[in-house]
Amino acid sequence: MAKDKKPRRPRAETPKGFRDYFGAEVTERAQMLSQIAEVYRAHGFEALETSAVETVEALGKFLPDVDRPNEGVFAWQDEGGDWLALRYDMTAPLARVAAQFRNDLPSPYRRYTMGPVWRNEKPGPGRFRQFYQCDADTVGASSVAADAEICGMLADALEAVGIERGDYIVRVNNRKVLNGVMEVAGVLDPTDPEKFAEERGIVLRAIDKFDKFGEEGVRALMGKGRMDASGDFTKGAGLSDAQADVVMGFMNAKRDTGAETAARLRELVAGSDLGAQGVDELEYIAQILEAQGYGPDRIVIDPSVVRGLGYYTGPVFEAELTFEILDEKGRKRSFGSVAGGGRYDDLVKRFTGQEVPATGVSIGVDRLLAALRAKGRIGGEAAGPVVVTVMDRDRMGDYLAMASELRRAGIRAEVYLGNPKNFGNQLKYADKRQSPVAVIQGADEAERGVVQIKDLVLGAKIAASASVEEWKSQPAQFEVPLAHMVAKVQEILARNGGN
Amino acid sequence: MAKDKKPRRPRAETPKGFRDYFGAEVTERAQMLSQIAEVYRAHGFEALETSAVETVEALGKFLPDVDRPNEGVFAWQDEGGDWLALRYDMTAPLARVAAQFRNDLPSPYRRYTMGPVWRNEKPGPGRFRQFYQCDADTVGASSVAADAEICGMLADALEAVGIERGDYIVRVNNRKVLNGVMEVAGVLDPTDPEKFAEERGIVLRAIDKFDKFGEEGVRALMGKGRMDASGDFTKGAGLSDAQADVVMGFMNAKRDTGAETAARLRELVAGSDLGAQGVDELEYIAQILEAQGYGPDRIVIDPSVVRGLGYYTGPVFEAELTFEILDEKGRKRSFGSVAGGGRYDDLVKRFTGQEVPATGVSIGVDRLLAALRAKGRIGGEAAGPVVVTVMDRDRMGDYLAMASELRRAGIRAEVYLGNPKNFGNQLKYADKRQSPVAVIQGADEAERGVVQIKDLVLGAKIAASASVEEWKSQPAQFEVPLAHMVAKVQEILARNGGN
Repeated sequence: MAKDKKPRRPRAETPKGFRDYFGAEVTERAQMLSQIAEVYRAHGFEALETSAVETVEALGKFLPDVDRPNEGVFAWQDEGGDWLALRYDMTAPLARVAAQFRNDLPSPYRRYTMGPVWRNEKPGPGRFRQFYQCDADTVGASSVAADAEICGMLADALEAVGIERGDYIVRVNNRKVLNGVMEVAGVLDPTDPEKFAEERGIVLRAIDKFDKFGEEGVRALMGKGRMDASGDFTKGAGLSDAQADVVMGFMNAKRDTGAETAARLRELVAGSDLGAQGVDELEYIAQILEAQGYGPDRIVIDPSVVRGLGYYTGPVFEAELTFEILDEKGRKRSFGSVAGGGRYDDLVKRFTGQEVPATGVSIGVDRLLAALRAKGRIGGEAAGPVVVTVMDRDRMGDYLAMASELRRAGIRAEVYLGNPKNFGNQLKYADKRQSPVAVIQGADEAERGVVQIKDLVLGAKIAASASVEEWKSQPAQFEVPLAHMVAKVQEILARNGGN
Repeated sequence: MAKDKKPRRPRAETPKGFRDYFGAEVTERAQMLSQIAEVYRAHGFEALETSAVETVEALGKFLPDVDRPNEGVFAWQDEGGDWLALRYDMTAPLARVAAQFRNDLPSPYRRYTMGPVWRNEKPGPGRFRQFYQCDADTVGASSVAADAEICGMLADALEAVGIERGDYIVRVNNRKVLNGVMEVAGVLDPTDPEKFAEERGIVLRAIDKFDKFGEEGVRALMGKGRMDASGDFTKGAGLSDAQADVVMGFMNAKRDTGAETAARLRELVAGSDLGAQGVDELEYIAQILEAQGYGPDRIVIDPSVVRGLGYYTGPVFEAELTFEILDEKGRKRSFGSVAGGGRYDDLVKRFTGQEVPATGVSIGVDRLLAALRAKGRIGGEAAGPVVVTVMDRDRMGDYLAMASELRRAGIRAEVYLGNPKNFGNQLKYADKRQSPVAVIQGADEAERGVVQIKDLVLGAKIAASASVEEWKSQPAQFEVPLAHMVAKVQEILARNGGN
């Protein structure tokens, strides 16, 4: 560490909350995104890459009645006085594009997009200020067939990246059904949408805590309130037991089949037009998914899905991975949500005044990558390139030619380009590169037209076991004619699973 | 257009100098970058994706003696008071990473990176404030074998994306040779590098204008100065004719073979140690490239390459595409430079105090894409997805199932999800999507178990030619049993080159 009072050098540090991605972290993500893109494209979705920078005005991120942008975005003032900001999601830029290019884009407009977004938030463990999003949206389709299409496509995308059928489930709900339930419970008045807003907020938050507080806790929050273990009291929504029964009925409405669940929901929203419409939509979605072969082993109606409901206006959906992993305390738990979305109908209106229906899904790129790692689909020991060592500085051309020859055979290969004087350093380098094979040719070998091929994987194993007999019976280094170099390297790589 | 005094809606506009990329613009670039990445990886280069945001301090972009960052970057002050900025190239972040992770990274460290960079500059036609860079660098290798490797890899990368051998040339020069020439000409004193800095600056700028001003103009600039057609006078470097002869000799030193060029350069720098070292390096590069089979049809020593010499300390190189295109005035001209780079040895030192040798290349992503388009390698008429039309809203499940079946056969396909009432709108949509085929099934067809397959490409041709005989003899619409839908669509697609 440099002392404080030395002439100051710049700190070589990634800014707080940001990170760099190395090697396989980059290529594995790129591969996963390319597999997802292929599924999206097959469904007629077109790629869109908006600029990373938007006007704060287009993002709608000015604080109310203030000239400064919301603190949640990274923003700065242009020379011209305009406020610019980095996009914080992919939906706001889509709304801008849908408005800006509305005369040129087909309608409905299906698009997918993949890239980083930025959040000016306090970073925390695993929470970064730049991360990837991967979205697919359909703009301009009011039919919930568009929502159904996205649910099916999401299932296809998960399978395409390596999540097997049975390891995931896409759950579908509808905000209209929940609003219908609220109406029946007497906390939503269709003629005065603002009325009971506070109560509904408390109910929504309570539902969202179902996993944590259980039925009793949620009931307390819907009623007078809930005292936690520390004695803190959270004020309740003030619903009567009968009202709370209606909402709890909704939470517990899932039945064995979609048809039974829908029938139960229809009972619960009896008397609410909005609720009935929501159930119709769910039935329609279930019906057309079934027609395409997406059975309840992949996509189910599940009233307990209540994700970000403030934002959505119709169907909402969530993909959950159902296999178990060990959490940080060694307990088994199911992997959980990796994607979600739903219908939102107001975003384009901000720009044009026209209501444009839209629905879409966002895949949590980092979560899905973590899942693929947990399933062993990616992230096995990545073998590095074959390293051609340099024994004789004057014969660099020959070494580079050997590497070329290996590459022509489809093998990753490189020549050691550091100072070749210390051969030990060359092998240490090969080790750091996780090279499976080193190729060695000194003056003597060159004269005889041979090379030494060192199996570094086997060498490491032998070094670990350290029995002299094994050492002798399993040589980790082979001398072959130069003409057999590629074949020998291929043979060793085949044993170790390629590079 | 909204009137000025209406309640104001946000403008739906990409910020000035930024742009959005649609469909094939995104996928063609992604494909090209993935082909380049494959070549880089085969050479042992590892992917790196740094955060888009850096501290201004790490970028070295503070104005001298001022607390505000250089205006060339997009920068803002964090809550903590730190200045953050968007990266303006890929080299500054690499230097930061090489310093920050120096104990973990292998040395030499070969890495490639691809992504957007941002410049806070006045936008102009074709000049954007966000654009892609694609770089490969080797950090920690002082041998110019590293430079040679990158030149060869650059040739491989160009061929991998579809630039044929003969359509490109990689030119290599060495800054040390030019400095040697300056020394011989008496405008560089090795014991006092600052001396004659102004004269050398004028000479460098003059050399750079060789294409524009010709030999006579360059000679004038090296001597007393040059008067242009408008009568404006540019002050010259004040070199004598003998001095100017030396520099002009350098510019014209290219001979038929690399060996002859090197011999001529060696004559020119006679007496300069630095110059002799530069010629040695060029000869070494030529020799080891030759050993790998990169002949002068692909990589040549060319003393006229003088790119960004202020930044570089040794070998410099540039890839030029040699085929001709028509410029905006319809004149033939050669396509020109698409990549360049060289050796720079001081970047990491800013952070650690240690000198770390480095060399690298940057491919101009947009220029190379434009070249591939000019050569017809990409950007042909991109066919859109097959559109399954909706004749009967209640049978949406069936239509979605048809699209699924087409996709399972590897065909991009989608169902029209707009309001299906007006069938003409559905065909207009298919037209906007550049769909090659529409699938139609009304109640009658459904009952008979058939579908109508409309060849939209042929239909458009017939509509254009408009002869009744052709119309009759070449029907553009076919009725087939539903079970033959995929086969018939495949047949039509094959005729039109797939989708």
